[in-house]
Amino acid sequence: MRLATLRDGSPDGRLLVVSRDGQRAMDARAAAGSLRAALDDWERTLPSLLRLELELDKGSPAAMELDLEKLAAPLPRAAEWVDASAYLNHVRLVRQARGAAPPETLETDPLVYQGGSSDLLGPRAPFPLVNEAFGLDFEAELGAVLGDTPLGTRSEDAARHVRLLVCLNDWTYRNLVPDELAKGFGFFCSKPATSFAPFAVTPDELGDAWQAGRLAGTMHVALDGAPVGDTETGDEMHFSFHRLIEHITRTRRFGAGTILGSGTISNASPERGISCLQERRALETIEHGAPRTPFLKAGSRVTIDFKLPNGRQPFGTIDQQVVS
Amino acid sequence: MRLATLRDGSPDGRLLVVSRDGQRAMDARAAAGSLRAALDDWERTLPSLLRLELELDKGSPAAMELDLEKLAAPLPRAAEWVDASAYLNHVRLVRQARGAAPPETLETDPLVYQGGSSDLLGPRAPFPLVNEAFGLDFEAELGAVLGDTPLGTRSEDAARHVRLLVCLNDWTYRNLVPDELAKGFGFFCSKPATSFAPFAVTPDELGDAWQAGRLAGTMHVALDGAPVGDTETGDEMHFSFHRLIEHITRTRRFGAGTILGSGTISNASPERGISCLQERRALETIEHGAPRTPFLKAGSRVTIDFKLPNGRQPFGTIDQQVVS
Repeated sequence: MRLATLRDGSPDGRLLVVSRDGQRAMDARAAAGSLRAALDDWERTLPSLLRLELELDKGSPAAMELDLEKLAAPLPRAAEWVDASAYLNHVRLVRQARGAAPPETLETDPLVYQGGSSDLLGPRAPFPLVNEAFGLDFEAELGAVLGDTPLGTRSEDAARHVRLLVCLNDWTYRNLVPDELAKGFGFFCSKPATSFAPFAVTPDELGDAWQAGRLAGTMHVALDGAPVGDTETGDEMHFSFHRLIEHITRTRRFGAGTILGSGTISNASPERGISCLQERRALETIEHGAPRTPFLKAGSRVTIDFKLPNGRQPFGTIDQQVVS
Repeated sequence: MRLATLRDGSPDGRLLVVSRDGQRAMDARAAAGSLRAALDDWERTLPSLLRLELELDKGSPAAMELDLEKLAAPLPRAAEWVDASAYLNHVRLVRQARGAAPPETLETDPLVYQGGSSDLLGPRAPFPLVNEAFGLDFEAELGAVLGDTPLGTRSEDAARHVRLLVCLNDWTYRNLVPDELAKGFGFFCSKPATSFAPFAVTPDELGDAWQAGRLAGTMHVALDGAPVGDTETGDEMHFSFHRLIEHITRTRRFGAGTILGSGTISNASPERGISCLQERRALETIEHGAPRTPFLKAGSRVTIDFKLPNGRQPFGTIDQQVVS
């Protein structure tokens, strides 16, 4: 099943069940006030949502045409937004470019940071660039939407807490990062609002591509219409979503509607291209001593599209323009 | 007006309006489903809440006796939980103890980190200690609950976005901090669930003590019944809540129900005592070369109570026992 959220003026928006072809949708108001409310009471809400999907498949006259322009993020406000950095090639590359060694515990202790969760952007929302000098970059990622997840959840028990998968762009102001990290408290102003692909997808919808907490497929990223990357998402995710859940629940529980991100998709083979400009700049720095690729500016257009091995695009496309 | 949240089995709890003496309360269900819902629609909800307060003052028979044991945090789930470190004495002391210089921008660029917001604890909730070796500590703080707060809010315009003030204990696993900060992504597992005093309070309730984004008064902290600190909260808050709002909205907006913390209350004069054990340990390290005060263990009891200059205790008492 694929779910989306229609902008309706309310902070959480209106929940929609989406047809297989992504062309039509059913208003799910009768089942839940919003995706957030559905996640709060998933066991009871899921059967109603599945019934709506069935009606949609049968060509229900109550279905509406789906207008992607009118969609919010599936969860315009998440319970929490936690982002990892599970593709270690990204960490190694970026640190190599600035002559720093990766952390000693890189392969055993996941890197995660806590992001802002009260203002998540939809797939076509213009992205407001505060200041070009801040060095705006994109980061194409996958994410898992969790149900209530207890303290001390083990990796082997984590699958049951994954309600939905999502695709996202973790916008980053690169030039604010060094000073913020130097202060020791992690990212804050360097991480503006995060953007999401149109559809949140139940794991069963992904078939065999969703295995042991990893999702196989390719992340297609284009900048101003030109392809810049088609990185593989499965094998090089060093820490699976399940392992990441074990890590984040080490000292506390998480409420339903928490989104857990994979970190920038990154492959060791440079032929796969990039999921963020920072990697290209890192490669340029390693090769030429300095980066050549500029960061984004007003007018830049970023398109992100995840494809399953069978060619399907379960999450729909993020297609955003940067505006000043 | 003082507001509280009754545990009723729902994730956001039930909103209560509390009497001046803190003994009775009115169920505010007719005005808003929860404090969270009230904050989403504050302008429309506030008059209804004020009417309930008036009925309460008149001795309404609909009032219930208030049982502090049954209270959740005022916001059991916040839109975001952002914590600053605005009392610079704390930063200077802790860094001095480990032979590190404070950040060069200490006085001009606020330190803030993003905390977990989906599981906030009530004033009497037992605190589940995961592992004594993690070095559990308390941090007594004040906090501001925000309404919708736009990108680029200036300090001089920030007052209008402060809906409520709160008092809190930002529990910290000190021994997890060094390794987490060394990884560069800030706190995560070192910050378990945060606890809150019973009442969230509108700024007008605080009179002249609330001035230009600072709240004057004293933070009384006791450990196992013995007083350990009565630090002053007003003058030594280097960055006011208003200035902190300007900082956090530099690159994004914040949704209604965001909680912004002051950081550990800390005074330059050691006679005022402490709001966290880490400071006493820092002083011991500076004096004796090593800390002598142990961290908390199962059975430890932490009591936190803020007093206004007029002796009133607007937020009520946090009184929690650590359990294994």
